[in-house]
Amino acid sequence: MNGNGKIYVIGLGPGNRQHTTPAAIEAIGQSGVIVGYNTYIELIEDLLTDKKVVFSGMRKEVDRCTQAFNYASQGEIVSLISSGDAGVYGMAGIMNEVLMKKGSNIEIEIVPGITAANAAASILGAPIMHDYVTISLSDLLTDWKLIKKRLHCGGEGDFVICIYNPKSKGRQDHIKEARDILLKYKRKDTPVGIVRNAKREKEGYILTTLEHMLDYEIDMVTVVIVGNSHTYIANNRMITPRGYRL
Amino acid sequence: MNGNGKIYVIGLGPGNRQHTTPAAIEAIGQSGVIVGYNTYIELIEDLLTDKKVVFSGMRKEVDRCTQAFNYASQGEIVSLISSGDAGVYGMAGIMNEVLMKKGSNIEIEIVPGITAANAAASILGAPIMHDYVTISLSDLLTDWKLIKKRLHCGGEGDFVICIYNPKSKGRQDHIKEARDILLKYKRKDTPVGIVRNAKREKEGYILTTLEHMLDYEIDMVTVVIVGNSHTYIANNRMITPRGYRL
Repeated sequence: MNGNGKIYVIGLGPGNRQHTTPAAIEAIGQSGVIVGYNTYIELIEDLLTDKKVVFSGMRKEVDRCTQAFNYASQGEIVSLISSGDAGVYGMAGIMNEVLMKKGSNIEIEIVPGITAANAAASILGAPIMHDYVTISLSDLLTDWKLIKKRLHCGGEGDFVICIYNPKSKGRQDHIKEARDILLKYKRKDTPVGIVRNAKREKEGYILTTLEHMLDYEIDMVTVVIVGNSHTYIANNRMITPRGYRL
Repeated sequence: MNGNGKIYVIGLGPGNRQHTTPAAIEAIGQSGVIVGYNTYIELIEDLLTDKKVVFSGMRKEVDRCTQAFNYASQGEIVSLISSGDAGVYGMAGIMNEVLMKKGSNIEIEIVPGITAANAAASILGAPIMHDYVTISLSDLLTDWKLIKKRLHCGGEGDFVICIYNPKSKGRQDHIKEARDILLKYKRKDTPVGIVRNAKREKEGYILTTLEHMLDYEIDMVTVVIVGNSHTYIANNRMITPRGYRL
C-alpha cells in the first residue's frame, strides 16, 4: 500500500520500444502493480522487476479492469497496459466505466500512445494526410449492420478508410463485404495499403488496389488503409495529397 | 556531406517531451540539418547544438520540403519537424510529393507521433473508443463543400467526430456551420469535448454539448471531439462505450 491508489491506462504504441513514449515508461516505473493482456506484458518484461504482474488472455478485459480497481483501492499505483493507444479500441473506456460503476473516485490517467493507423501510415508513405475514418470490423461488441452503415458513409464521404481488426479466425468474410461496400463508392484501382505488424517484429506491407486487396493475407495483426479518390502510389509509397501546389 | 543523404519526417507528438518517442529524438540526433516551422523548432531547441537549423513560418510548407531535399541531395541527413503525427495533416505527404516531382530516390523515413485527436482524447477520458472520423475545417487546400459533405457523412454514420483546425482568424464561421450540420444527425445534448493545447503548456478542456459548444473559446490550438449516440459524460469525463457488459 502506498497511500492513495491511482490507475494509469497506458498505450505502449505499436510494440517496438522506440515508439513508446517516456510518459508510458515513467508511469510503469511508478507502478507497483502491472495488469495486462499476456502479449503486451511480454513486450515490457524487462521493466517488471519487483512488480506484481497480473495478466490474462483475450476477452478478459472487464476482469483486468476489476483487478486494476481492486489493487488501486488498496492504495496501489497500477498500470493497465494496452498496445497502440489505450483510447482507441483499447482499455481506456472500459476502465473508466468500471470506476464509474463502482462509484469510485480513484485517480485515473490515460497515457496516449501511437495507434495502429498512424504506425501503419508511416510505413506506407502518407496515406492519411487528409480526412479519414477509423472503423473496426470486429462485431463482438458492435452490430455488423452498424459497421456496414459506417463503411457506406465512409465511402460516400470520400474519406480515407483505416480498417482495424479486419479479420479473425471466426470472422473471415467481413473484409470481403467491407470491400464490396467500398467498391460502390471508390474506383477499383483505388490504392490500398495492407500493413502487418506495423513497427514491430515481422513487419511487412503490401501496396495494392481495392480490386485486388483480397489476394493478400489479412488477419488480426493487419491494418488495412483504403485511399480516397486522390490517393496514388508512386515510388512504392501510398500518398494522399493534401492539395499543396508544387 | 555525409555520403548518402536521408530525410526523416518527424512527428514530435503534442509538444511535451514526455510524449515524444525515442525514435523521434534519435532521428534528430542523427541529423546534421533540421528543417521546420518556427514554433516546432523552439520545442526542440535543446537538441540543436552543432546542427544547421532552417526554419520558416506558416504556409511555407513547400519551401521547407524543397530545402530538406536540397540538403539531402548534398548528402546530409535531414530531419523535417512536424508536431503531432507528420502523417496526419502534417509534412509527410508534401515531402514525399516533392521527392517524386524531383524524380529523386533519396531515402525518406516517416517517424510517427501522437496526433492531436489521441492526445485530446486522453485528456477528456475515452471519447474515441469506437469508430471515429477526423475532419479538418481548414479550407485553405480543400473545398468547403467537400468538408461539409464529410460532416454530413460523419453524422449520418453516427461516428465520433474529431475536428482539427476548427477556427482561425480568417475563418470564424465554419465551426458554427459544422455544428449545424451535425445537429441534423446528433442530439442537442450529444457530449462535446473541447481541448486546448493538449499535453502541452496552458492545457485546458471543456466538457459541453453540441447545443452549447459555441459558448466556449475555440481556435487553432483547439481540437473538438463530438460524441456518437452512446457517448456520455460522468465523473467529469467523456466516455464512448465500446459495448462491454459490466
